[in-house]
Amino acid sequence: MASPSTSSDSPSTTRGTTPGSTPGTLGVWFLGARGSLATTATIGLGALAARLTDETGCVTGHPDLDPRGLASWADIVVGGHDVDTVPLAKQAERLVAGGVVPGILAERVAGELEATEARLRPGVRAGEATDQRAVVEQLAGDIREFAAGVDRVVVIDVSSTEAPHDAGADAATWADLEAAWAAGRAPLSPSSTYACAALLAGAPYVAFTPSPGIDVPALLELAADRGLPYAGSDGKTGETLVKSALAPMFSTRALAVRSWTSINLLGGGDGSTLADPAARESKTGTKRSGLESMLGHDVPGPMHIDYVEDLGDWKTAWDHVRFDGFLGTRMTMQFTWEGCDSALAAPLVLDLARLTGRAVAAGETGALAALGFFFKSPLGSQEHRLAQQWDTLLAWSRECADRVSP
Amino acid sequence: MASPSTSSDSPSTTRGTTPGSTPGTLGVWFLGARGSLATTATIGLGALAARLTDETGCVTGHPDLDPRGLASWADIVVGGHDVDTVPLAKQAERLVAGGVVPGILAERVAGELEATEARLRPGVRAGEATDQRAVVEQLAGDIREFAAGVDRVVVIDVSSTEAPHDAGADAATWADLEAAWAAGRAPLSPSSTYACAALLAGAPYVAFTPSPGIDVPALLELAADRGLPYAGSDGKTGETLVKSALAPMFSTRALAVRSWTSINLLGGGDGSTLADPAARESKTGTKRSGLESMLGHDVPGPMHIDYVEDLGDWKTAWDHVRFDGFLGTRMTMQFTWEGCDSALAAPLVLDLARLTGRAVAAGETGALAALGFFFKSPLGSQEHRLAQQWDTLLAWSRECADRVSP
Amino acid sequence: MASPSTSSDSPSTTRGTTPGSTPGTLGVWFLGARGSLATTATIGLGALAARLTDETGCVTGHPDLDPRGLASWADIVVGGHDVDTVPLAKQAERLVAGGVVPGILAERVAGELEATEARLRPGVRAGEATDQRAVVEQLAGDIREFAAGVDRVVVIDVSSTEAPHDAGADAATWADLEAAWAAGRAPLSPSSTYACAALLAGAPYVAFTPSPGIDVPALLELAADRGLPYAGSDGKTGETLVKSALAPMFSTRALAVRSWTSINLLGGGDGSTLADPAARESKTGTKRSGLESMLGHDVPGPMHIDYVEDLGDWKTAWDHVRFDGFLGTRMTMQFTWEGCDSALAAPLVLDLARLTGRAVAAGETGALAALGFFFKSPLGSQEHRLAQQWDTLLAWSRECADRVSP
Amino acid sequence: MASPSTSSDSPSTTRGTTPGSTPGTLGVWFLGARGSLATTATIGLGALAARLTDETGCVTGHPDLDPRGLASWADIVVGGHDVDTVPLAKQAERLVAGGVVPGILAERVAGELEATEARLRPGVRAGEATDQRAVVEQLAGDIREFAAGVDRVVVIDVSSTEAPHDAGADAATWADLEAAWAAGRAPLSPSSTYACAALLAGAPYVAFTPSPGIDVPALLELAADRGLPYAGSDGKTGETLVKSALAPMFSTRALAVRSWTSINLLGGGDGSTLADPAARESKTGTKRSGLESMLGHDVPGPMHIDYVEDLGDWKTAWDHVRFDGFLGTRMTMQFTWEGCDSALAAPLVLDLARLTGRAVAAGETGALAALGFFFKSPLGSQEHRLAQQWDTLLAWSRECADRVSP
Ligand SMILES: NC(=O)c1ccc[n+]([C@@H]2O[C@H](COP(=O)([O-])OP(=O)(O)OC[C@H]3O[C@@H](n4cnc5c(N)ncnc54)[C@H](O)[C@@H]3O)[C@@H](O)[C@H]2O)c1
Ligand SMILES: NC(=O)c1ccc[n+]([C@@H]2O[C@H](COP(=O)([O-])OP(=O)(O)OC[C@H]3O[C@@H](n4cnc5c(N)ncnc54)[C@H](O)[C@@H]3O)[C@@H](O)[C@H]2O)c1
Ligand SMILES: NC(=O)c1ccc[n+]([C@@H]2O[C@H](COP(=O)([O-])OP(=O)(O)OC[C@H]3O[C@@H](n4cnc5c(N)ncnc54)[C@H](O)[C@@H]3O)[C@@H](O)[C@H]2O)c1
Ligand SMILES: NC(=O)c1ccc[n+]([C@@H]2O[C@H](COP(=O)([O-])OP(=O)(O)OC[C@H]3O[C@@H](n4cnc5c(N)ncnc54)[C@H](O)[C@@H]3O)[C@@H](O)[C@H]2O)c1
Ligand code: NA
Ligand code: NA
Repeated sequence: MASPSTSSDSPSTTRGTTPGSTPGTLGVWFLGARGSLATTATIGLGALAARLTDETGCVTGHPDLDPRGLASWADIVVGGHDVDTVPLAKQAERLVAGGVVPGILAERVAGELEATEARLRPGVRAGEATDQRAVVEQLAGDIREFAAGVDRVVVIDVSSTEAPHDAGADAATWADLEAAWAAGRAPLSPSSTYACAALLAGAPYVAFTPSPGIDVPALLELAADRGLPYAGSDGKTGETLVKSALAPMFSTRALAVRSWTSINLLGGGDGSTLADPAARESKTGTKRSGLESMLGHDVPGPMHIDYVEDLGDWKTAWDHVRFDGFLGTRMTMQFTWEGCDSALAAPLVLDLARLTGRAVAAGETGALAALGFFFKSPLGSQEHRLAQQWDTLLAWSRECADRVSP
Repeated sequence: MASPSTSSDSPSTTRGTTPGSTPGTLGVWFLGARGSLATTATIGLGALAARLTDETGCVTGHPDLDPRGLASWADIVVGGHDVDTVPLAKQAERLVAGGVVPGILAERVAGELEATEARLRPGVRAGEATDQRAVVEQLAGDIREFAAGVDRVVVIDVSSTEAPHDAGADAATWADLEAAWAAGRAPLSPSSTYACAALLAGAPYVAFTPSPGIDVPALLELAADRGLPYAGSDGKTGETLVKSALAPMFSTRALAVRSWTSINLLGGGDGSTLADPAARESKTGTKRSGLESMLGHDVPGPMHIDYVEDLGDWKTAWDHVRFDGFLGTRMTMQFTWEGCDSALAAPLVLDLARLTGRAVAAGETGALAALGFFFKSPLGSQEHRLAQQWDTLLAWSRECADRVSP
Repeated sequence: MASPSTSSDSPSTTRGTTPGSTPGTLGVWFLGARGSLATTATIGLGALAARLTDETGCVTGHPDLDPRGLASWADIVVGGHDVDTVPLAKQAERLVAGGVVPGILAERVAGELEATEARLRPGVRAGEATDQRAVVEQLAGDIREFAAGVDRVVVIDVSSTEAPHDAGADAATWADLEAAWAAGRAPLSPSSTYACAALLAGAPYVAFTPSPGIDVPALLELAADRGLPYAGSDGKTGETLVKSALAPMFSTRALAVRSWTSINLLGGGDGSTLADPAARESKTGTKRSGLESMLGHDVPGPMHIDYVEDLGDWKTAWDHVRFDGFLGTRMTMQFTWEGCDSALAAPLVLDLARLTGRAVAAGETGALAALGFFFKSPLGSQEHRLAQQWDTLLAWSRECADRVSP
Repeated sequence: MASPSTSSDSPSTTRGTTPGSTPGTLGVWFLGARGSLATTATIGLGALAARLTDETGCVTGHPDLDPRGLASWADIVVGGHDVDTVPLAKQAERLVAGGVVPGILAERVAGELEATEARLRPGVRAGEATDQRAVVEQLAGDIREFAAGVDRVVVIDVSSTEAPHDAGADAATWADLEAAWAAGRAPLSPSSTYACAALLAGAPYVAFTPSPGIDVPALLELAADRGLPYAGSDGKTGETLVKSALAPMFSTRALAVRSWTSINLLGGGDGSTLADPAARESKTGTKRSGLESMLGHDVPGPMHIDYVEDLGDWKTAWDHVRFDGFLGTRMTMQFTWEGCDSALAAPLVLDLARLTGRAVAAGETGALAALGFFFKSPLGSQEHRLAQQWDTLLAWSRECADRVSP
């Protein structure tokens, strides 16, 4: 990561990476680095690098996806922010006990966890910031320090989902934001604070959560100004994933979906966060958006996310679809999905890091719409159909690969 | 249907339709015209023509599919063969009692059913044929007679599934077949007898069942010689349909499917036919083929088709998928599909009639690979993924439309 | 119904039925007589009386249950209150359209429906009563009028579920209630108003809903004083029924249930009432009570009742049970129940009418605990296990039969 | 085990245990001692004795079951026969890898496993026996040797399910059997050979499999003659267990079950044995028997047991029930059961050992019908309903307890 802009006073157009450069070390900076997902990704990365596990679940390992120019697993380094202080090793133990990570793997990568531990920095909580500009600078400083040791950094938000937050007129433009800060106001939610810090540190930002993050006018302006790409939002790993495969079936077969009920049971840190109605609202929002777009009309039906402590990181989703066929015949389909959320999401955040890192090298800027395949609420795209997203991802991947490894 | 070849002695290249002609009356000739599926299609066609029902379930009614040059519902006429003699009106009653067709609709189209009744002709059973050439001529004669009253005929096999049948060396070429007939042998199964008759009568042939039908070297030669298109095989309406939407999800997400169990419960005529292990073998064959191709490797897991009399035309399918994710985590997905088989299939056979009729007008010949969207075991194509089949269908549909309605 | 007390001023001990009397005409007075459940019961009763249907779903038709002294189907007459005015015939049409009642049956019992229509009287809504004592008298008068034409009346609440309601100190005793009325207050909810009227008219009261009804100290005093039996509450027809069969399995096998999730989707009138959170609270209350008692400990897990308009009277319930076995192994069971609520409940309310009618003849008073088999929240009993409830019902049934038909 | 009869020549009436004696060491002799089930039971017993686990899954630990006179966990010793030679420690590893047994537990009881290893003896395979009488004597000798070190022995068959086997006229009476042996014939299947050996060694026999075992006239005569109790057959742990809880619900609610479909997927040793159609026939036989008896009529519907290697000891069962309600309404219920077979069965075989040991002490002889709660095909009883079996078990348990600990 050659020359991150060191001044946060105003967006500038410098960008440290040259299209066509060969990949070197890639730094992944996790927001929420001590969470289930980040810890699973960190352990998994260690296991991949040491060839202790195969690439199951890794989209960038798919034979149809052009790998030229992607950082190799062994060249990826993890750091990050978290507000919690529980050691990564403890989190790893919890994941082993919960059946998410095999005990033997956790043992074998204990050294890498320790090394990562040393690269974690304290994060910032909602409401804590008295001087938000100073906080942003502090966070950006952490990222820059990390960037100094690697060739390129990608910042990925895998922290707890925030409640919906409206930054309002104070974040309408970058100038407004600077004015608000100057007046002692703190309009940004924590996720946006981090997004701002990432951009100021010259790093692309990926939102794996539905939190506001970069999706605030002032920050989009900053990203454009810095020529940095970004992607999001909210990883598509469970029943929304299945929906994006199934809904087009109903639609192309001209079957009339009358109701679609979605029940999600999960425990773990994410489940406990989503037990809070405000956070849940952010989530059900991104979950709903796709169905209507894929079916071409509004579809009634309850959608619940329920905290069931006992399930831990294992999510059980039950969906019930009522549809009409020819001559008004009433039919139903239902499915139950029993997946390990962290295991589903962890390889995807590693994929996003590799793909976004290469995208920077390929000179991509703005919303990376071709990454919609990974997200419930794709930034820069209205396409929710999984198969079409896949085709788009493959084509874009080839283009980027061509540019960085001609 | 201008000038169907009247000689069956040898294949010829004459074909009665001119590319670019405008569509007129379309004749659909059902093999198995008194079955649940054909009767539902016949009632439904009447209802569509009279605007008593909407196009739910009709793919050719989809807003994205180019409709130029498709026969309108009111311009389609039904006839067919069946070995059974139970009146269509009685079958309609059975379908009403089984909840497949609303009673009110059946009443309103009683006249059309009666008119169709008059156009049905006796079929031929396995083992009955003493002089198979004569039988073929007889069947072809029935089709020609029907063709005389319409502009174009499409023959669609919706009769009971046959056991696998190997026509062998006797049907290796058209010459071999004629020689076998001359020698008093009867190498063709009934479905192939019909397929032969269709071709000799100048009509394209669509296999909605997994029976051998046209898929015999001598008949493929005949079709090529006559320049006739054909399509098949085995309508994709239930769990295989769902599979073709879901399997690509596992594959593109690099999730490792370890087993896929498929249970199909159904009653009705189709269920009772499939209670026979030999017929079932034809069916599980076409059902299996796709999964391996979509996942890229063989997938173990039982596949059952069970006759449960009480279910009638309502099929319940349960599928259980065991897959591994990142770091070997074990996950499962299961779904239950409760659909009315005849209601799912009936609009598709009408779609196939319209699309194949237009294809003839557009000058298409040979296997219509672009119709793979409709089939479990698509002739002329290795593509099983539903979304890709859809894109192919749309593109081909535009091409055909351009050619017939420039 | 010989001599119902005509004065409502104070409870008295007169009761019009003599133990041991032979059964004659039985009057069933439905509160909510125009609802789906009451209409289905009325149609079904007509069909049973005319032998157009069999006793499927009727517990009193079970070969193990002693039938001596039960009113025959042909000797049962229906009347009732409702606040709605839509004709029964219209409701019947709606039930036919919804697939709850076969069209042919509804036609054949049209005469009975018309006769019942003439016996329906306007009910009372919450908040309407200005002089609650007068309202009670009016309602009691309706019931007495109906009672004059039959030998015995049973009042059954099948009206919309009310929100939880606390009648408070004003209904602590019968004297308190009379004082409150005298002071111009109206402490009773509608269901309790009806229960009061039933008792004053000398009729036993059965609560098929979770509404407060008779479960108010002043009314229990009145029932005791009049020597009248009563039963309730909240019919057990769907997932709670299944729970009462399944939970004892986990308990007797010493399996540790860690969470039990219950999702209920339903449309129809009942579903739309329960879309109101207050009414839903009454329902989830009675639904929850049993599980803890059967398993011996509190069990976490969400319980939802969701209105899905499209489902009509067809309820779909999905339950997910997480339990631990030996050595802490984690296991799950899930079930999906797809039942027609009105068809499940209708025969039960007829059963309750017959059994309660006979109980009066047998001299039973107070809470009929042996009817717990029918209810989610059995009055007079803590037993929720279905099998034990069944054994109790059979034994009690024999006792009553012995007393009325020695 | 005081004085087991040492002669096998003819049945005698001596029995080594005195009613009313206090319990001492109990020996459990497993047939199939190296299998998943036996190994899980052995590990679990060690864990219970050392208080490393709680009594979850142990019926004899249920607070309602009278524990007086039951051997304590610490006083139970395991030995047994197996034809395989893979060390218990290796089996334990396999169970740990499969998630059946926690690794930490297996480590902690390694010593007990080693001690048990020393008490295992080679078993006998079908078709191996040339001199069946000698084989029986050899097996009986092994059991007697084991018995010498404990106060009482219970023999439990947990070996692979055999194909149905008809011992025929050669085993009609004990005399016939001796004659057949004398004539050099070998009429008994291995399980019956073991059962014979158990009886000759003075030990009660419990059949946890559906193999013929003791259910042969000559052996029942021998058991009667020796005054020994026995119990079986085929442990009820999965979908049959659920059926025995659910079927009575349909029956007592007068709902008409039209079809009941049962699908069982399992891997492991048991699954691989049952992949053989002959063994499967034994199993589906015992699984079917209960349903008809509980519902009072034959119920159509397929029943499959399928081997899905990847599932290991984890069985997934899917059942689909079609039933009719009032007025012929069509309803369905379906459930999915995901249980660990060995973890479900292991505590039950320990329970059976304790209960059968106490039964001997209490002077019980013949078929222990009150143990029907544990079995798919209860010997000595026609009762399949779980709740009634539970009540019977509790009552009998109290009686036995009273007799041994007055
Ligand atoms: N796992 C999936 O399948 C999946 C899919 C889509 C989205 N997500 C999202 O990913 C996020 C992480 O999921 P998880 O299961 O790891 O949850 P988790 O609760 O285990 O981890 C969240 C971490 O974020 C930290 N955190 C909270 N507030 C923070 C702040 N202001 N700054 C820095 N760190 C903060 C917490 O301390 C915790 O360590 C959630 O928002 C979840 O909704 C996950
Ligand atoms: N409905 C679906 O969803 C679906 C999907 C794929 C394939 N199919 C296939 O479509 C076919 C029809 O299904 P259905 O439900 O209508 O079955 P059905 O049993 O109701 O009808 C089959 C009809 O074919 C007739 N028939 C049998 N042998 C014949 C012969 N030799 N010649 C002429 N007619 C003959 C029978 O008399 C009967 O009327 C079956 O082969 C089925 O496998 C149906
Ligand atoms: N059907 C079942 O399986 C089942 C099971 C348990 C309980 N229940 C209860 O039975 C009741 C009836 O169910 P439904 O499906 O028929 O509902 P419904 O909405 O179709 O009928 C309710 C009827 O009650 C009438 N009503 C409302 N307020 C009234 C009042 N104050 N006085 C008189 N009538 C009044 C309505 O006008 C309507 O006709 C509901 O409370 C439901 O919760 C039903
Ligand atoms: N686990 C359950 O829930 C359950 C329920 C009911 C019945 N069962 C029955 O219990 C039995 C054991 O199940 P499992 O899962 O442990 O199977 P498994 O295959 O793991 O073990 C069977 C053992 O029996 C041994 N064996 C085979 N033939 C033998 C013989 N002739 N003599 C001595 N040993 C022999 C095998 O070597 C093996 O070690 C099976 O018959 C199964 O059907 C199990
Ligand atoms: Na999580
Ligand atoms: Na069919």
